Amino acid sequence: MVKTNLDRLFNPKSIAVIGASGDRNKASYTVWKNLVENYKGKIYLVNPKYEEIEGIKCYKSVRDIKKPIDLGVVIVNAKISNTVIKEAMESKVKFLVVITAGYREIGKEGIRREMELKNMLKEHNYKTRVVGPNCLGILDNNSNVNVLFLPKNKTTRPLKGNISLIFQSGALGAAIIDRFASEGIGISRFVSYGNAVDLNELDFLEYFLKDNKTRVVGLYLEGIRDGRKLFDLLKKAQKPVIVVKGGKTQKGGKATLTHTGSIAGNYEIFRGVCQQTNTILADNFRDFENYLKIFDQNPLMKNNKVMVLTNGGGFGVLAADGIELSELLDLYTINKKEERSLRNILPDYGNISNPLDLIGDATPKRYEEALKILNNNGIGAYLVIILSQTFSMDERIVEVLIKIKHVYRKPIICVLDGGEYVFTLRALLESRGITCYSSVHEAIKSLEKLYWYSERASWDESRN
Amino acid sequence: MVKTNLDRLFNPKSIAVIGASGDRNKASYTVWKNLVENYKGKIYLVNPKYEEIEGIKCYKSVRDIKKPIDLGVVIVNAKISNTVIKEAMESKVKFLVVITAGYREIGKEGIRREMELKNMLKEHNYKTRVVGPNCLGILDNNSNVNVLFLPKNKTTRPLKGNISLIFQSGALGAAIIDRFASEGIGISRFVSYGNAVDLNELDFLEYFLKDNKTRVVGLYLEGIRDGRKLFDLLKKAQKPVIVVKGGKTQKGGKATLTHTGSIAGNYEIFRGVCQQTNTILADNFRDFENYLKIFDQNPLMKNNKVMVLTNGGGFGVLAADGIELSELLDLYTINKKEERSLRNILPDYGNISNPLDLIGDATPKRYEEALKILNNNGIGAYLVIILSQTFSMDERIVEVLIKIKHVYRKPIICVLDGGEYVFTLRALLESRGITCYSSVHEAIKSLEKLYWYSERASWDESRN
Repeated sequence: MVKTNLDRLFNPKSIAVIGASGDRNKASYTVWKNLVENYKGKIYLVNPKYEEIEGIKCYKSVRDIKKPIDLGVVIVNAKISNTVIKEAMESKVKFLVVITAGYREIGKEGIRREMELKNMLKEHNYKTRVVGPNCLGILDNNSNVNVLFLPKNKTTRPLKGNISLIFQSGALGAAIIDRFASEGIGISRFVSYGNAVDLNELDFLEYFLKDNKTRVVGLYLEGIRDGRKLFDLLKKAQKPVIVVKGGKTQKGGKATLTHTGSIAGNYEIFRGVCQQTNTILADNFRDFENYLKIFDQNPLMKNNKVMVLTNGGGFGVLAADGIELSELLDLYTINKKEERSLRNILPDYGNISNPLDLIGDATPKRYEEALKILNNNGIGAYLVIILSQTFSMDERIVEVLIKIKHVYRKPIICVLDGGEYVFTLRALLESRGITCYSSVHEAIKSLEKLYWYSERASWDESRN
Repeated sequence: MVKTNLDRLFNPKSIAVIGASGDRNKASYTVWKNLVENYKGKIYLVNPKYEEIEGIKCYKSVRDIKKPIDLGVVIVNAKISNTVIKEAMESKVKFLVVITAGYREIGKEGIRREMELKNMLKEHNYKTRVVGPNCLGILDNNSNVNVLFLPKNKTTRPLKGNISLIFQSGALGAAIIDRFASEGIGISRFVSYGNAVDLNELDFLEYFLKDNKTRVVGLYLEGIRDGRKLFDLLKKAQKPVIVVKGGKTQKGGKATLTHTGSIAGNYEIFRGVCQQTNTILADNFRDFENYLKIFDQNPLMKNNKVMVLTNGGGFGVLAADGIELSELLDLYTINKKEERSLRNILPDYGNISNPLDLIGDATPKRYEEALKILNNNGIGAYLVIILSQTFSMDERIVEVLIKIKHVYRKPIICVLDGGEYVFTLRALLESRGITCYSSVHEAIKSLEKLYWYSERASWDESRN
C-alpha cells in the first residue's frame, strides 16, 4: 500500500463536508457547525438539496468546488456514499473520512458496497486515502478539526492535551472523550477508523509514534490485520502505548464480526506481543482509561518504592494491603531522620510508619510538611490519599501537590473517594496534571503498570 | 457479655451531646447542629464552658440533666473522656457513642486509657453500652439520628434507603456515604465503631440481620475478634451480607494495628468462611461499593442467562468478552420468534444477536420495543448499555427502564460511561432503583456476584 504522510488529514488547509445538512437535529449538521465554530481553515459545504445553509454557500457536488481540498467528510446515505466518494477521488481530495455506515458490518449488501469501495481505491492508486467507513472520524485539538458528530448538550468539550487515541469503535471513543473532558484530562488527537477499508490502526500508530504532539498513545483494537507490522511498530515505540482488546473470546470475536466486521485473533498471542514489546496491555476498558492518564501526567518511576500518605487510617490499611500484594511495588521504609522530623509535625499520638497516617485533622499544610520531609531519592512515587470530607481538608491541597510535583519530578498519585466536593477537587487536580483515582485499588494497579514500563522502556529523559 | 437490644441506640428518644461546642469550625459543633436540624427527639447539650449555645441551654455535666437519656455522644478531649463517660454511666445513659480518639490506637498512654474504660464498663455491668472510642459514630436515616461530624459543604446529604453499613474505619465510611449520596443510592443505617471497646461488628451484624429496615448489610472489617460467632451469624443470615477486609497482608495487618489496634487474622481462612456462609466477599473497596448497590436495587436472578442490549457496537464486544470469560454467566440465545419481531424494529442492516446492537441511532423507544420483545423467562438479567452521547438518546430512557423493571421484576443493570450528562442520567436512574456502572467490566463482575448469591441463598420470595 502507498505511504502517505497524514499531516493533511489531521491538519488540513481545507475541508469539504459532503452531505452537510441544514437540520439541526442531524449529525450531518453538527459536523459542519462544529467546524465552522472552531476550525480556522477553509470549509466547503456539499449537498444538492441546498443552495446555502445558514448563509454559507452549498455546492451540488464536490466536483463543483474546483479548489484543492485536503479533507472530505462523507456523511450521506449508504446508497449514494460510493458515488460521492468517487466524485471526491476524481476531484483529488487528499483524505476522506467516511462516517456513513452500511458497509461490511451489515452483511451481504454492505460487503458488496465495501468491495466496490476497495476497488475504487485501487483504481485510483490510493491517491485519495480513506478513514472509515462506519466510523466516528477524527478530532484534533491542535488544528481544531473535529468531525465527531456528538451533540454538544450531551458531551463535555474535550481539552487539549498529549494523549492520542486510535479507536476501532466509535462508541467507546465517544465515551472516553466525554469522560476525559469532564475529568480535566486532555487529548491531542483522536481517530475512530471503523471498517478500515484503507487507513487502519497501523497507519495511525506509526504516525502518532513519530508525532511530537503525542506523549502517550491509546489503542482500542478489535481485529489485528498485520501482526508482524504491529509487532515491529510496538517494538520500536519510544513512548508508552496502552492497548485494550475487544474480541478476546469466541463470542466477543463473533460480536466484532457484526460490529466492524474484523477477525479478532488470539488473545494469548496478543498478550505475548505486548509483553515482548513493552506495550501496556489493559485487561478492561476501565483499566485502559486509568493507565492512559497515569502515563500522560507522570514521569517514569526510578525505583519501586511507594510512600503512602493519608488522613484516613482505613485507606492506609487498604494501601498497605494493595502494595504488599503487588509483585512489583514495595512500601518505602522511613529512615530515622525522617521519623524524627515527622514527629514534630504530627500530634503526639501519631504513629510514624508507611502508610503514614497524618490523622483526621490533617490540613493541606501538614501534607506539605510531611512531603517536604519525605524528599528522598529512595522514593519512586507518592500515593497521596485524601479524605476531603474532613473539616481541616480543603482546596489548598491542590497547590501543595502541584508545587511538590513540580520540584520533585516524580509521580504523585492521588486517591479521593466520595461525592460532589470530591468530583470538584479531582477535576481541579487532574486539570493541573495530578493523576487522581477514586479507589486505592485502581491507583495501585495503575502505579504498578507505570513501574513495569519504567523498568523496561528505553529511558526517555525528556519525560523526566 | 450482656445482651442488649440496640433499638434505642439507633432510635433514641433523647440525646445528650457531651462536649457540644459553640465554635462553628469544630466537629463538636457540627454534631449537635445536625441533630437539632433533623432529629425530632429531645436534645441536651453538655459543656461546662457554656451557659447556652445559640439559645440552647448547656449543662455543666450530664449528671445535671436528671432526665432519662437514651444516647450520649462523647466528643471531648481524650484527657477527660473517661471522666465524662463515667459520669454518663452513673447517670444511666443507655448508649454512648464515643467519638473521641486517643485510645489504644496511639500506643502506651492510650492503651492505659482504654483498659480503664474497659474496667469501668465491667464495673457497671455493661448497663451503659458503648460504641467506639475513636469512631465516626452512627447515622440513621429512619430516626434522623446523625452524629457524623462531616462538614455539610464537603459532603452530599445521604438519602434514605435500605443498605445498612458496619464500618470499623470512619474514613472509608465517610467516603462511601458521600459517594452513595451523590450517586442517588440510599442508606438505612450506618455505624462506625472504631476501637470497639464494647459493641462491635458482631452486635451490629446481629441487629441488622433481624432489622426490617435493612435489606442488604455491608461490612468493612479489619480485625476479627470472634470467628465462631461471626461464622454463625453469617451462616444464618437471611439477607445478603457483603464484606470487604482490610489487613489481608502482613503490612496491611500492621497498619490495622496502628489504625484501630486490631489483629487482622488470616485472609485465606476468612475467604473460606465467606464461601461456606454465602457471604459476598469483595476483593477491594470499589467492588464492595459496586456489589452493595446491585444487591440493594435488584431481585435475585432466576437463571444465569444475560441479555445484552446496546447502541454502541464496541460496548457489545466488551460485554460478550466479559460474559464469555465469566465462569457463572452466559449469554441468552435469542429464539426465532424474538428474532423475527426484532427485525421489525431494527434498521434493515441491523444484526440480530446477543449482544443486541440497537445501532447508533437507537431511541429510548427502540430500547423499549426490544425489551418488550425480549420478555422471556429464559432471561435471568438484562445488561443495558447506553451510549448517551448520541443524538437519539435522551432522558426518556429512564422511564422506559423503570417501567420494564417494575413489570419484569428482574435485574436490569445499566452501563453508561462519559462526562457530565452521563453523571446526570446515572443519578436519575440510580435514584429510581436502576443500578448503573460506568464500565461493562464492573457491571458483569457485579452481576456475577448477584448470580452466585442467587444460586446459593435460601430463596427469599420477598425480594422478588
